[in-house]
Amino acid sequence: MHKKPHSKRFIHTNIPRFLISKKAVEMEMENRNEAKVESAVEFPACDDVNTNKKDDEEELTVEQIFEKKEKEVPSWKKQLTVRAFVVSFLLSIMFAFIVMKFNLTTGIIPSLNVAAGLLGFFFVKTWTKLLERSGMLRQPFTRQENTVIQTCVVASSGIAYSGGFASYLLAMSQRIVQQSDKNSTDYKNPALGWIIGFLFVVSFLGLFSVVPLRKIMIIDFKLTYPSGTATAHLINSFHTPQGAKLAKKQIRELAKYLSFSFLWSSFQWFFTATDECGFQKFPTFGLKAFQNKFYFDFSATYVGVGMICPHIVNVSLLIGGILSWGLMWPLIETRKGHWYSATLGPGDIQGLRGYQVFIAIAMILGDGLYNFTKVLSQTIAGLNNKIKENKTMNLPLANSPIKNPLSFDDERRTKLFLKDQIPKWFAIGGYIAIAAISTATLPHIFHHLKWYHIIVLYIFAPILAFCNAFGCGLTDWSLASSYGKIAIFTIGAWAGSSHGGILAGLAACGVMMNIVSTASDLMQDFKTGYMTLASPRSMFVSQVIGTSMGCIIAPCVFWIFYKAFPDMGMPTSEYPAPYATVYYEMAKLGVEGFSALPKQCLNLCYAFFAASIVINLIRDGLGKKRSWFIPLPMAMAIPFFLGPYFAIDMCVGSLILYIWQKRNKDSADALAPAVASGLICGDGIWAIPNSILALVGVKPPICMKFLSRGTNNKVDSFLGS
Amino acid sequence: MHKKPHSKRFIHTNIPRFLISKKAVEMEMENRNEAKVESAVEFPACDDVNTNKKDDEEELTVEQIFEKKEKEVPSWKKQLTVRAFVVSFLLSIMFAFIVMKFNLTTGIIPSLNVAAGLLGFFFVKTWTKLLERSGMLRQPFTRQENTVIQTCVVASSGIAYSGGFASYLLAMSQRIVQQSDKNSTDYKNPALGWIIGFLFVVSFLGLFSVVPLRKIMIIDFKLTYPSGTATAHLINSFHTPQGAKLAKKQIRELAKYLSFSFLWSSFQWFFTATDECGFQKFPTFGLKAFQNKFYFDFSATYVGVGMICPHIVNVSLLIGGILSWGLMWPLIETRKGHWYSATLGPGDIQGLRGYQVFIAIAMILGDGLYNFTKVLSQTIAGLNNKIKENKTMNLPLANSPIKNPLSFDDERRTKLFLKDQIPKWFAIGGYIAIAAISTATLPHIFHHLKWYHIIVLYIFAPILAFCNAFGCGLTDWSLASSYGKIAIFTIGAWAGSSHGGILAGLAACGVMMNIVSTASDLMQDFKTGYMTLASPRSMFVSQVIGTSMGCIIAPCVFWIFYKAFPDMGMPTSEYPAPYATVYYEMAKLGVEGFSALPKQCLNLCYAFFAASIVINLIRDGLGKKRSWFIPLPMAMAIPFFLGPYFAIDMCVGSLILYIWQKRNKDSADALAPAVASGLICGDGIWAIPNSILALVGVKPPICMKFLSRGTNNKVDSFLGS
Repeated sequence: MHKKPHSKRFIHTNIPRFLISKKAVEMEMENRNEAKVESAVEFPACDDVNTNKKDDEEELTVEQIFEKKEKEVPSWKKQLTVRAFVVSFLLSIMFAFIVMKFNLTTGIIPSLNVAAGLLGFFFVKTWTKLLERSGMLRQPFTRQENTVIQTCVVASSGIAYSGGFASYLLAMSQRIVQQSDKNSTDYKNPALGWIIGFLFVVSFLGLFSVVPLRKIMIIDFKLTYPSGTATAHLINSFHTPQGAKLAKKQIRELAKYLSFSFLWSSFQWFFTATDECGFQKFPTFGLKAFQNKFYFDFSATYVGVGMICPHIVNVSLLIGGILSWGLMWPLIETRKGHWYSATLGPGDIQGLRGYQVFIAIAMILGDGLYNFTKVLSQTIAGLNNKIKENKTMNLPLANSPIKNPLSFDDERRTKLFLKDQIPKWFAIGGYIAIAAISTATLPHIFHHLKWYHIIVLYIFAPILAFCNAFGCGLTDWSLASSYGKIAIFTIGAWAGSSHGGILAGLAACGVMMNIVSTASDLMQDFKTGYMTLASPRSMFVSQVIGTSMGCIIAPCVFWIFYKAFPDMGMPTSEYPAPYATVYYEMAKLGVEGFSALPKQCLNLCYAFFAASIVINLIRDGLGKKRSWFIPLPMAMAIPFFLGPYFAIDMCVGSLILYIWQKRNKDSADALAPAVASGLICGDGIWAIPNSILALVGVKPPICMKFLSRGTNNKVDSFLGS
Repeated sequence: MHKKPHSKRFIHTNIPRFLISKKAVEMEMENRNEAKVESAVEFPACDDVNTNKKDDEEELTVEQIFEKKEKEVPSWKKQLTVRAFVVSFLLSIMFAFIVMKFNLTTGIIPSLNVAAGLLGFFFVKTWTKLLERSGMLRQPFTRQENTVIQTCVVASSGIAYSGGFASYLLAMSQRIVQQSDKNSTDYKNPALGWIIGFLFVVSFLGLFSVVPLRKIMIIDFKLTYPSGTATAHLINSFHTPQGAKLAKKQIRELAKYLSFSFLWSSFQWFFTATDECGFQKFPTFGLKAFQNKFYFDFSATYVGVGMICPHIVNVSLLIGGILSWGLMWPLIETRKGHWYSATLGPGDIQGLRGYQVFIAIAMILGDGLYNFTKVLSQTIAGLNNKIKENKTMNLPLANSPIKNPLSFDDERRTKLFLKDQIPKWFAIGGYIAIAAISTATLPHIFHHLKWYHIIVLYIFAPILAFCNAFGCGLTDWSLASSYGKIAIFTIGAWAGSSHGGILAGLAACGVMMNIVSTASDLMQDFKTGYMTLASPRSMFVSQVIGTSMGCIIAPCVFWIFYKAFPDMGMPTSEYPAPYATVYYEMAKLGVEGFSALPKQCLNLCYAFFAASIVINLIRDGLGKKRSWFIPLPMAMAIPFFLGPYFAIDMCVGSLILYIWQKRNKDSADALAPAVASGLICGDGIWAIPNSILALVGVKPPICMKFLSRGTNNKVDSFLGS
């Protein structure tokens, strides 16, 4: 069972809003209204347990229901079954492909929680059912085991994101570096060996750094962790009869749209002899619009993503696309020869592409700065309150002044949560040991990153990891990529341009992101475990195993893409990996300043940086209800360098969902996430045979080409002669 | 209101089975089981009036219900309103385009009764509602007026078929003649003037020839006329509250799919810079399959047609396609150089195309002969019985031995049917006058058709018209095209090859088809009028006005297509008009014998002619229920020369309907005809702007081209250099 992927894992440069579930987004915008957490569950079945009064089990709380059903909660060792890890392994591979595909195409990673949850449940349930029929079932499928699977898969596929394969790692490669600096030799091409090594020495630090704090965060501070809570509700609901029934329906829808999407993608493949052929280059709105990247590319994935993301995200993307590719770039192009040299190609960073990339970076940084400040101030204020609270009542549990009907649940959960301890010396010892190993190893991997850089990073890392885990518990918003950017700028500037500051900065970014990202992940998992009575020990072990899997699977999957699609990272490629360029340019800015920017670009950047902050201020100023029509600056920035084509796909998804909701709200709410997940997963699974076919050199047989009538006449006469 | 188009109108070479409604097809196969007529109504609402016992109007017959509602049946003059003919005119134009498109693409014309019925009802109802609101409604919308519209539209759009624009008329044109005989100058190109003249002098003869017989057929013989009866049920149902409610729902579905289909067709247009571009040439199953015409061409029309036609028709088409293009033609092609000259192109009638056309003709003639014999013997037997019956009881009405609950209806209907008479002298005088005019005129249009040929035709015509009207009343099966073929062979042989026998035969075919076709049409209309209490006079006037409209609209629509698509009639064209070649080759066979056929072709023809008869014998021998898996020879023959691509479209339609029926039988039965009509009409309406765009020289801007990878590389390097 896949846990609801936490926002923090799936964030690129502070774009958590549309990477996590809609409800969580709304949550975040309500400025952590804790009372709403119970309703923050995206999965319609989740609330059934609490609210369905027609049932036999009226008036019972969740844990009372489960107490009747579960005779005994299995011990932490029994929660860690072999079958759980086999299923986790298979799902990890699948999700690694899907996440990698998202990383490399647009960098927008939607919430795959429903897909992961349903598929995991489906696999284990089928397995146990089969065993049950043949009389070989020794151990029933419990919700604790389910939590173990979810945790393991999230940990594993999280590496596919925080490993930076489409951001800081790829940014170091020759093909990205030389897009910006043609003659630079200061690059480090990816290779399977050093990537796996690097991930192993940095990915476990986050786990050890926050393990000792789990009681404070979960029990004493009672942080909400919206994603973790939602995942727990999801898992709990699966193990009640009603929830299982709805899950079955959802699995059916998911399977249907998964097959459709898979077949559609494989059908498309046959017509894609080159990157310039096929449905992905379909000039839906005409050739002129196509040149400005306005087209619908028939991608089931992004239609599905559009169905998951809130409407405002899709609309913001489209507005950003229209503003940039419909208005700004054509206008700037008229200045060709004045603002930038007329001899430059459209992909040259000194030319038009420079405006695209740097204006987008300005907006992303503006949005990032705003939200970093906002979340950090909330974190500090929240921390203050919690500490005060705990001082006034030293027995947080027995004497809790909050009387609510869930206190039975809380009591039972707390009892089990505190039963299995992880010794403090183990955590601290582990952290120091791994930090020592990695301080010794990392300078050998990245020659520009010195041992003293690393030690400074590892002194600050636990503090930042705690901040991130705490902030995430309050707001569901992980700032991992923000902390990463801080590392880029500080370490980069420290190393200096003459000492390979760009690469040092990028490497430091990787170290920092991995630590803070896994820290908040683990804490979300503890929350899920708390609510499903899974032991903290089994959570920790599952996370360690999942992380290890991820450290191997993610680089291998990346390697397959890297070898299969040699033009990956190029702006015209099927896999443009947009954030690789953005990260490289950010690191370069940090080290070298604004000298390389084309004319007027800096002024435009200032304007958009400011606009990004102002729009955010207006959003928060108006409040959630009245600001529904204000676009999100982060979402607006992405199409600036990618073009609006995927925004059009996503708006189509939005439109489908909108019509569905108008016609039948209940059905849409219950099934749309499953349908969207099916569309996403089917296309994602096709990435596996697709890259294998590319690796073994099987190329599609047909090119579906789009020619203007004039060109077509020329081609016809050429082919005729 | 458009009447259910009678089978006879929409028949090409005896393929009524899938040109009329499914129910009527089943009817026909049950060998005129009169008791079933009431259930032969395709429209689900139609039976409501009789069967819904929950209603207030329990136990009332149709006419009792209407007697309560209609205070008085309007006089025949009041039934003929201006608004009825305005709506008829608009619908006539639309259906002329749709029918013409079918004629020119495959020659398969599906039943458009639901579409016509719903659209006519929708237009007049909207109109009267608007007037009612503004207080200007002087005359309510009655079912008699509805019948007038239906009759008028059927008469008018019937000309689009019986005018032979894609068969005998086009067969005379230079482009068809010279496909077969390169140097022949014996052709007559279409021109607006002579076609309109020709239609006016031959289309009214059928009406006058059977008018005097209406009382015998409808009242005395009580012939069933399944299509006419179904149309009457449809119209009656529209004017009951329940029927109107369902009709509203169906109109909504129709409108939805009509818009979708229209938008889809217009979207397709943009990518069709030449005939070789676009979705219509989409190699869905690969380039190799495409060469053998196996592909899905994304035609909404033929998917819709597939939903209307019985599954066995679609499957038969596919079987025929696989047998011919998948097996026989590739095999025959291996004999190239032995059986036929290797220097011939694929479109040459002396080569492979000869096999395709003549084997198809053999199957069509075999099927035609079988069914002609069958229907004619049934007609004679039925006529015998009726005459005997009427001898034994001379007062067919008062003393009728059949006691059934509908006798009130029959009585009322008969009373009104006999009220308005059309004098016999008027009918006979009209026939002789028009015959005289046309005898004088026709030889000026077709120089090879002599006055004595025409007089002989006009002596036999009334007899054949009666036979056809009678047979159609029994079996719903019009043999118009069979009578037309008889004329081709007899008049052609009589004129002889040296005196332009081919053209004379084709012209005689046109004269004969027009007469017998309109005769059975009118009789169906009288039956509809009888059941809806519309006066025979208003039916006759409506038919005359409709025919006049058709004589002008149909040639004009044809002319638009002819001018807009100059390659019409060529095998590779968007509008191949397959029957034009078939008719020309039949006429040539009749005049010149088998001399022109390529080697082994005659033997194959004999085999398929025999097979066609044997398969029909097996079908009838096994009975309807046990022969469901035996394909229809006529349907198998069509893809022989066209290729199986449209059969694939139709099978997709079949599949959609099958799945829909499995999931929700009621919904599929009620709405599938409306959905199919929407798909057909939307695509058909697009033919109007499409041909106008072609006429004014606006060409689509983009070519969607499909190239093999090798060719694509060549093209890319050509375009790059």
